[in-house]
Amino acid sequence: MTDVQQALSITYFAAGDSGGWHVLDMAAVHGPGLPPVAAMAINDGDPIDGARWTLRGTVSHLRYIGAADRDALDARSPPLGRPEASNAAMIAIRKSAKWWRLAHDERHAILQRSAHLAIGMEHLPAIARQLYHARDLGEPFDFITWFEFAPRDEMGFSEMLAMLRASEEWGYVEREVDIRLERAD
Amino acid sequence: MTDVQQALSITYFAAGDSGGWHVLDMAAVHGPGLPPVAAMAINDGDPIDGARWTLRGTVSHLRYIGAADRDALDARSPPLGRPEASNAAMIAIRKSAKWWRLAHDERHAILQRSAHLAIGMEHLPAIARQLYHARDLGEPFDFITWFEFAPRDEMGFSEMLAMLRASEEWGYVEREVDIRLERAD
Repeated sequence: MTDVQQALSITYFAAGDSGGWHVLDMAAVHGPGLPPVAAMAINDGDPIDGARWTLRGTVSHLRYIGAADRDALDARSPPLGRPEASNAAMIAIRKSAKWWRLAHDERHAILQRSAHLAIGMEHLPAIARQLYHARDLGEPFDFITWFEFAPRDEMGFSEMLAMLRASEEWGYVEREVDIRLERAD
Repeated sequence: MTDVQQALSITYFAAGDSGGWHVLDMAAVHGPGLPPVAAMAINDGDPIDGARWTLRGTVSHLRYIGAADRDALDARSPPLGRPEASNAAMIAIRKSAKWWRLAHDERHAILQRSAHLAIGMEHLPAIARQLYHARDLGEPFDFITWFEFAPRDEMGFSEMLAMLRASEEWGYVEREVDIRLERAD
């Protein structure tokens, strides 16, 4: 393709035998899982050779969050890569065709009734979070969310996940894979 | 990539010497244009060999439109491929980094003040329209919109474009290419 000045870079999650993160556990929460691997490498902008499987996503822009909530989130959100945040989780989900047929206001109302943002805010600044959009790339998942936290915050992280999974929003999740990792320093 | 069951198919707009549409005119409305070509082929799901350049997009889901407007649009929107709609236009745009840094409510308010939906609705059912999202694919444009209309409706189409281009929303458009085509039957 000529004239390609890429607006957004693609992040590659390459799973295999080696990488910056050791895989501790992999669970298929809804629908089929992913083939087991020992490690994951993450790279912005270029694929990684030799992976057993690779998922892709892009940081993209905000889809539902308003200006006031964006500013509150920005003020409280820690960056990825904190030295004490040696644990990570990668949650890959796909929502149903029914979800994607809803209009924007219908999806927004479900997210608000599900308190998605409020549940996440309660766990800031302990848990760092980066959302990657994958649906428009034609990936098997719609979203990949990468979380980083210190070992002492893993219980809080699991509580947060349990609240989200019990919400109305999660009724539209038809596939979910939960991968827990530890920095391979 | 293993386990790829693509959720969305990618549409390829392959520009070159041949294809289902003859290119009548190409204009760079904002920013750099695209290399001139004689024809365009459109294919859902697979790239086309031998193109001079190719743009890609995906139909994706509604980003701003509420349920009531969606239903009104659905009721009035004609399909692509009507026999009398022998003319087409492909408008490829990229919006600025400033646009994409806005929160969802800020972008929605600008679209409403710009009457984007109302301007488009006035020209239904004469003008068929399909929006393709390209930004998350890392393409040089954020959106490709494909329009089909009968020759008698070209003036109305041009009026619609002029109204959109005069709107607040278009202040965020930093690149726009306008290609006019005719069915190559």
